Amino acid sequence: MPGQKFASRAPQNPAGFANWLVFAFLSGIETRYNAPMKLLTSFALLLFSFAAVPAQQAAPAPYAAKTLNELRTIQRAALKSDYALNQTAYLSNNIGPRMSGSLQAQRAVEYVAEEMRRLGLEVRLQKVMVPHWVRGVETGELTEFPGMAKGTTQKIVLTALGGSVATPATGLTAEVVVVNNFAELEALGHKGVEGKIVLFNNKFDSELADSGFGLQAYGMAVAYRGGGASAAARLGAVAALVRSAGASQDRLAHTGAMRYDPKVTKIPSAAVTYEDADLIAYLARMGAVKIRLVLTPQTLPDTVGYNVIADLKGSERPDEIVIVSGHLDSWDLGTGAIDDACGVAVAMQVPFLLKQLDLRPKRTIRVVAWMDEELGGTGGATYALEEAANIAKHVATVESDLGASHPIGILYSAKPEMARFLAPISDVLRSQGAPLAESRPGGVGSDTGELSRQGVPSFAPYFNTQTYFKYHHTAADTFDKIDPKNLAEVGSLTAVLTYALADSQQPLPR
Amino acid sequence: MPGQKFASRAPQNPAGFANWLVFAFLSGIETRYNAPMKLLTSFALLLFSFAAVPAQQAAPAPYAAKTLNELRTIQRAALKSDYALNQTAYLSNNIGPRMSGSLQAQRAVEYVAEEMRRLGLEVRLQKVMVPHWVRGVETGELTEFPGMAKGTTQKIVLTALGGSVATPATGLTAEVVVVNNFAELEALGHKGVEGKIVLFNNKFDSELADSGFGLQAYGMAVAYRGGGASAAARLGAVAALVRSAGASQDRLAHTGAMRYDPKVTKIPSAAVTYEDADLIAYLARMGAVKIRLVLTPQTLPDTVGYNVIADLKGSERPDEIVIVSGHLDSWDLGTGAIDDACGVAVAMQVPFLLKQLDLRPKRTIRVVAWMDEELGGTGGATYALEEAANIAKHVATVESDLGASHPIGILYSAKPEMARFLAPISDVLRSQGAPLAESRPGGVGSDTGELSRQGVPSFAPYFNTQTYFKYHHTAADTFDKIDPKNLAEVGSLTAVLTYALADSQQPLPR
Repeated sequence: MPGQKFASRAPQNPAGFANWLVFAFLSGIETRYNAPMKLLTSFALLLFSFAAVPAQQAAPAPYAAKTLNELRTIQRAALKSDYALNQTAYLSNNIGPRMSGSLQAQRAVEYVAEEMRRLGLEVRLQKVMVPHWVRGVETGELTEFPGMAKGTTQKIVLTALGGSVATPATGLTAEVVVVNNFAELEALGHKGVEGKIVLFNNKFDSELADSGFGLQAYGMAVAYRGGGASAAARLGAVAALVRSAGASQDRLAHTGAMRYDPKVTKIPSAAVTYEDADLIAYLARMGAVKIRLVLTPQTLPDTVGYNVIADLKGSERPDEIVIVSGHLDSWDLGTGAIDDACGVAVAMQVPFLLKQLDLRPKRTIRVVAWMDEELGGTGGATYALEEAANIAKHVATVESDLGASHPIGILYSAKPEMARFLAPISDVLRSQGAPLAESRPGGVGSDTGELSRQGVPSFAPYFNTQTYFKYHHTAADTFDKIDPKNLAEVGSLTAVLTYALADSQQPLPR
Repeated sequence: MPGQKFASRAPQNPAGFANWLVFAFLSGIETRYNAPMKLLTSFALLLFSFAAVPAQQAAPAPYAAKTLNELRTIQRAALKSDYALNQTAYLSNNIGPRMSGSLQAQRAVEYVAEEMRRLGLEVRLQKVMVPHWVRGVETGELTEFPGMAKGTTQKIVLTALGGSVATPATGLTAEVVVVNNFAELEALGHKGVEGKIVLFNNKFDSELADSGFGLQAYGMAVAYRGGGASAAARLGAVAALVRSAGASQDRLAHTGAMRYDPKVTKIPSAAVTYEDADLIAYLARMGAVKIRLVLTPQTLPDTVGYNVIADLKGSERPDEIVIVSGHLDSWDLGTGAIDDACGVAVAMQVPFLLKQLDLRPKRTIRVVAWMDEELGGTGGATYALEEAANIAKHVATVESDLGASHPIGILYSAKPEMARFLAPISDVLRSQGAPLAESRPGGVGSDTGELSRQGVPSFAPYFNTQTYFKYHHTAADTFDKIDPKNLAEVGSLTAVLTYALADSQQPLPR
């Protein structure tokens, strides 16, 4: 009887035995007690069910009742506060664009540090060697195309990609070849590409983005922005244009970082607007299209920038750290309001609110305004490196870097047990329309990515990113795109989440 | 008895008498027949009612049954045709922006003339002396503002207004003063304005535009674009900026024509985006804001342009003319697809469809591609002047110059009796969602305005202009903004309307 060998493994301790009985019952295992066991098993199952309830109730609650009350107090104060709004306005309007290595970025560092000191936090500036790329002239024009009036050209709206090398100062003129994806490029081969400008006409998937999957749509488009130039250069192209990796419909070019394969010739690379990509593709179907590009960006030697690190010391476990953060650098075309002055502002607002409410959590809340998220990611990398010995003391990170539309909940990357720690937070946030807590593997923040890879649970506001991907990395990323009510909700979510994580009475799972 | 003198005026002929009786009855006039007359009157009224029905039926119908059938045939063909779409694409993509006096405008003239000849029309080019204004460099930057990082500036997105004079080539720097309207400017007086750059921060009323009153919203904003510079110069300002007269939310500046008061110093004038207007207003509330402007447009001597005039001769009354038209020139920032390649294209499509269907109306259909609607309006003015002796033979004008969104019907400017001529047309257009016929006093077309003032009935497609005012006069007025289905509907409406007016069996009221 096969049942016998199973029965012989029946555990000896009562709880183990009850579990085993349930397992045996559910598995339909035949035992030597067979028929009489069916009844006994049912009885044991009943007993076990009763035993399980007190066992669950006894599992210590993540938060004290006092903490839960405080979360609601923080929420109310945040939803009424205009602190984050004013900080977003100041960073974007008064300081302006804050490219890595720029004077404005440095001014922003000093401003945030001063503001955090004013709130009584312990502030230090963490030195980061950042790339220093400076945009120059950038013009494009069609110099030959079917139907062209003799003696004219037609202007193309474009913007150099971050990290691109320059064309000759007098420009570069070549015929354009249009491909929709890497496979089409490969199919053209060296013969079809050599000496030409390649236009990667891969369309940003707006329908996917509008369905709540903006990051996925962005990821697909970014492959061409990041790697298009080297793929084209491998086949002898002289420059690469990419259709903007974004959802703008307003002749706005989306800039962004690109990288060169060190084994391949560096060729200039720029993003054209979706309108210009359509125009070039239309004309190229009719006949030869030549483009003259003038791009004069400069890659200067790496320079010094800073992460701003400001600690609100914990009352019971000051050595344990919950990071709340956004990135202080921005692109240069707009004023970086949605990407990411608002993220820094809601992080700054956390200690502001706690001071206002005279609250101090058990663990240390560390506000970080990251430097160089956009161009090199050196701020986050430097932090992770310098804190290598102290990673275990980082219990959680929060980063907001997807704008400030209405947040619908929390994204997180952590052990499944974290769900139990988030449920009470979601209960609080439900009243502001942010009841979700969705797990995403692999980290949910850019600057906090390395910490996440080393096991630190990471958290972020969960947005519909439809608006974000319409404006981010364009000239239209400006303060007016911030809706005060939505920003207040992001501020509330950030403060409630951060305080809860820092004040939990149980260790966070990792 | 007062009735006696009325009775003595009773007409002698039977119809007149019946009418008089009705009048007397309805007026309660007392006659010397008084009581017996009441009965008689009632009887007469009954008789008259019967008489009136055949009398109305006898009123000649505007259109023959054959014509009404043909309208439905034309509609079906138009809704399936891609002719107008291809013409719009060619004018905007292959020829590109078509500023008055430019090589592209000349190329467009030749293209349309050739295409009309190809369709077998009698074509002539009408010489027009057009203004010749050429955009130059145009940059703006904030050189001083509260919070500015030392050694930096902040870029402002702007575009020179058509007709503006230049700044010195090295630029012009001055403090900005922000006003919301002319009254605030006047309140500042000479002392508050002298030596400064005035920003007119009048907001385009998007809510009004979204409610279907785009033209009204536009008219209110255009007052500042057109007259702001001279109003500011009168008080000693050195330059004038206006918040864009349009609904863009994408850091797109809307250009457009401005005019100088000849008695006042000419100062440079440009439109800033709504984002930049907001930014400047925000900073100016905090302290001094200085702007450096470099605008180098040139006003060259007037040059020769052409209206393209192409006649499809009428079969019965070839001397009577129905104009169908759009304007061929455009602004230079975009490619003038919605303003107004699509208007020219739907006009060109009318003879195309009639040739395809082998239809020829009683009157002559005259396709006109107007030159210089945007900058000087010289095309329409020249036409009206040269046709002065022939105005009576112009029985109607159709002009489409508000883009190509879904048309909801017909706008017209004519005698009230015209309603009877439009009802059968609206019946046909109802099936495509364009059942309205709305009267607007004072003309419904820009280039046809002078003819309208001289009594020629004018017609236009009736649109919700929400999309139009978001893109018109900006870099984003490009071919992709044309929705093929909507354009087909505009083409259908234009062809049905034009053919009906040209083929009516009754004279059009005027």
